Amino acid sequence: MRNAESLYDLRVDGDRLWRRLEALGEVGAILGPNGERGCARLALTDADREGRDLVVGWMRDLGLAITIDAVGNVVATRAGTDATAAPVMVGSHIDTVRTGGRFDGNLGVLGGLEVMETLEQHGISTRHPISVAFFTDEEGARFQPDMLGSLVYVGGMALEDALDVRAADDNARLGDELARIGYAGPTPCPTATAPHAYVELHIEQGPVLEDEDITIGAVTGVQGISWTELTIVGQSAHAGTTPMRLRHDAGYVAAAITAGVRAIAREMGGTQVATVGRCELLPNLVNVIAAKATMTVDLRNTDEARLEKAEASFHALCDQLAKDEGVTIERRSLARFEPVEFDEGMIKLVQRTAQRLGHSTKMMPSGAGHDAQMLARVCPTSMIFVPSVNGLSHNIAEFTKPADISAGANVLLQVVLAKAMEGAV
Amino acid sequence: MRNAESLYDLRVDGDRLWRRLEALGEVGAILGPNGERGCARLALTDADREGRDLVVGWMRDLGLAITIDAVGNVVATRAGTDATAAPVMVGSHIDTVRTGGRFDGNLGVLGGLEVMETLEQHGISTRHPISVAFFTDEEGARFQPDMLGSLVYVGGMALEDALDVRAADDNARLGDELARIGYAGPTPCPTATAPHAYVELHIEQGPVLEDEDITIGAVTGVQGISWTELTIVGQSAHAGTTPMRLRHDAGYVAAAITAGVRAIAREMGGTQVATVGRCELLPNLVNVIAAKATMTVDLRNTDEARLEKAEASFHALCDQLAKDEGVTIERRSLARFEPVEFDEGMIKLVQRTAQRLGHSTKMMPSGAGHDAQMLARVCPTSMIFVPSVNGLSHNIAEFTKPADISAGANVLLQVVLAKAMEGAV
Repeated sequence: MRNAESLYDLRVDGDRLWRRLEALGEVGAILGPNGERGCARLALTDADREGRDLVVGWMRDLGLAITIDAVGNVVATRAGTDATAAPVMVGSHIDTVRTGGRFDGNLGVLGGLEVMETLEQHGISTRHPISVAFFTDEEGARFQPDMLGSLVYVGGMALEDALDVRAADDNARLGDELARIGYAGPTPCPTATAPHAYVELHIEQGPVLEDEDITIGAVTGVQGISWTELTIVGQSAHAGTTPMRLRHDAGYVAAAITAGVRAIAREMGGTQVATVGRCELLPNLVNVIAAKATMTVDLRNTDEARLEKAEASFHALCDQLAKDEGVTIERRSLARFEPVEFDEGMIKLVQRTAQRLGHSTKMMPSGAGHDAQMLARVCPTSMIFVPSVNGLSHNIAEFTKPADISAGANVLLQVVLAKAMEGAV
Repeated sequence: MRNAESLYDLRVDGDRLWRRLEALGEVGAILGPNGERGCARLALTDADREGRDLVVGWMRDLGLAITIDAVGNVVATRAGTDATAAPVMVGSHIDTVRTGGRFDGNLGVLGGLEVMETLEQHGISTRHPISVAFFTDEEGARFQPDMLGSLVYVGGMALEDALDVRAADDNARLGDELARIGYAGPTPCPTATAPHAYVELHIEQGPVLEDEDITIGAVTGVQGISWTELTIVGQSAHAGTTPMRLRHDAGYVAAAITAGVRAIAREMGGTQVATVGRCELLPNLVNVIAAKATMTVDLRNTDEARLEKAEASFHALCDQLAKDEGVTIERRSLARFEPVEFDEGMIKLVQRTAQRLGHSTKMMPSGAGHDAQMLARVCPTSMIFVPSVNGLSHNIAEFTKPADISAGANVLLQVVLAKAMEGAV
């Protein structure tokens, strides 16, 4: 085995990683009006299958041992020297939102593959095995809740319940779609073995690193997430003849909730955010008061008590509007995750490693949900953030500079090596 | 010719009229969850053709002279004794909104047919010819502007422009759809002959008559209508990682406009109403800030100056929101009609006739647009309103009691007779 000094000098091949990001981005590629190169690879669609097949092919080329579990999570492992040691795991997801980018998720998976190839190329053995995983349906854009694959992986949701989830768009059953694309695997899920540690490289998906001109974020935890679907039922009527005071306008109530949760977030300040991303009216005609509105509310905060306060304000707003307008509002929780705090040792390891490699760094929470928050339930976990240009993600204009991609992958490599060498003599 | 006294005693056959309403309502019939019997017969669809064919068949059975003009308006005429006299016209439309009822429009057309059949049955000749018309695309649910057929009929819109209008849903061209269903007729449009008078029987489509327990509304005019389509372009981004202050959220702006026009209508009071019936977000996902919103705003007032004030407030609201949120708002006028005042003699004739027949009556404006407002440009015009149960219209639960239908049709008969006998010796 090489000595620590020479391992410290090991670096990934940034061009090779970039080429893999480009190749995977071509699967489900969408092009914007200004030449933006986005991606639409919704979970368990044909495009997702094609993306999975491409990544599994690369895993196979590297001689990794591949397992596919019952919810479609794919784990590829490079053996360690100690047969009893638990693997150091890296990973993320390769599904995207409907109009997504080419870095979100993909970077963590392909960054992990690049770590594997770098070790292989330099003939480096580690005590712990190293696994790279991609988890099913992280985005939740087609099947809810989001982070479904990693949630089931750590035992947070029963496999049977996950397989029975229905797609928001076409009502397809998750288990059926998994079988259809050939990724209903034989490996049991949840996993029998907790990893030794988990680290996920990811784009920030927000504007903070770029604003402060910082290259590496050492991620301290993940905001709590509360997703609610509302079905508002009013009374359709003629837009010209129904006096304002006699209306039961589901569209107006949807709008008042949308404006209301914005006001709640503004008043609470801090990390509180509130978004209505989805809203549909029925019958959706210019001169008919809407009989029905369906919408979602996305609330997030790093602090559980404050997230609960935001939820309480939101529910009080709904109750008041339902009463004032004479409509009913049915509420259904689509996802609810408490804020997650990552392992202090892992956070500091990411920070120290970034500093050692000469990068500016800051400790920061994640505004988005990530598979890492599920793995944090079963092993020491942290994440490595790299800057998003203009803070954009879930957008075809999503972009991270090649230099930042390489910087993040090298931090990933060194963090993985440090964990995989633990206990080695 | 009979004397005036015996004509005064003439009454329609309410059952026959009701049966025709039922039969026409079966074309494009939709059933509600509680047994409501609605109708979906969008302009120039196959269902509209079927409805037109049914009504034209009844016109033919009555031996009327039928003309179909270049924009698909159908006029059926019963000859008068004076070959030089202009016809007294009655009519309305038979297209419906997507989830409409079985009375809106249909009543004016089939009430007119019932007047014809009553006169025929009793062998009554009139000096003026009597015409019953149904006009193309009154609702504007498929092709905008609404009241398109009657607008072209009176020369308010060039025929070529009308034929080039595109459907909101499938982009079909009006002229092509007209030809496809066989209703691109040979009669020139606009009409060469202004009617002697025009009177339209219609359901109120609002709650006023029912609330005040009144049977017949003598309609004084029609509210001015202002329809605007807005396209709001912001910036899609991740719902979790984008601080509230950095958002360019098209969905939020749509909601703020919806809530804002409600506030404008409430503050202005009087007859001012404001409705956002249509709103669509893109990409319409729970965790993505909307990049784009498309919506409509429907403003109405009986007073032109106040309608202009509402429009100015609405535009100022849009300008302010666009600036505050950093989005662009493109505005396109879909329809703009000034308030219309009907002919005083015609209004009073409706009122006096209703009183003579023993009905409670009130003078009232119409909150909805009607073909009558177009005909008012070329001849003395008024309308007869009958109550809508629960004030509902543009709704599958739309209903008017048979007794009120008969009452309205008898007022129509007597008003038509009075006008058609004018100048007779």
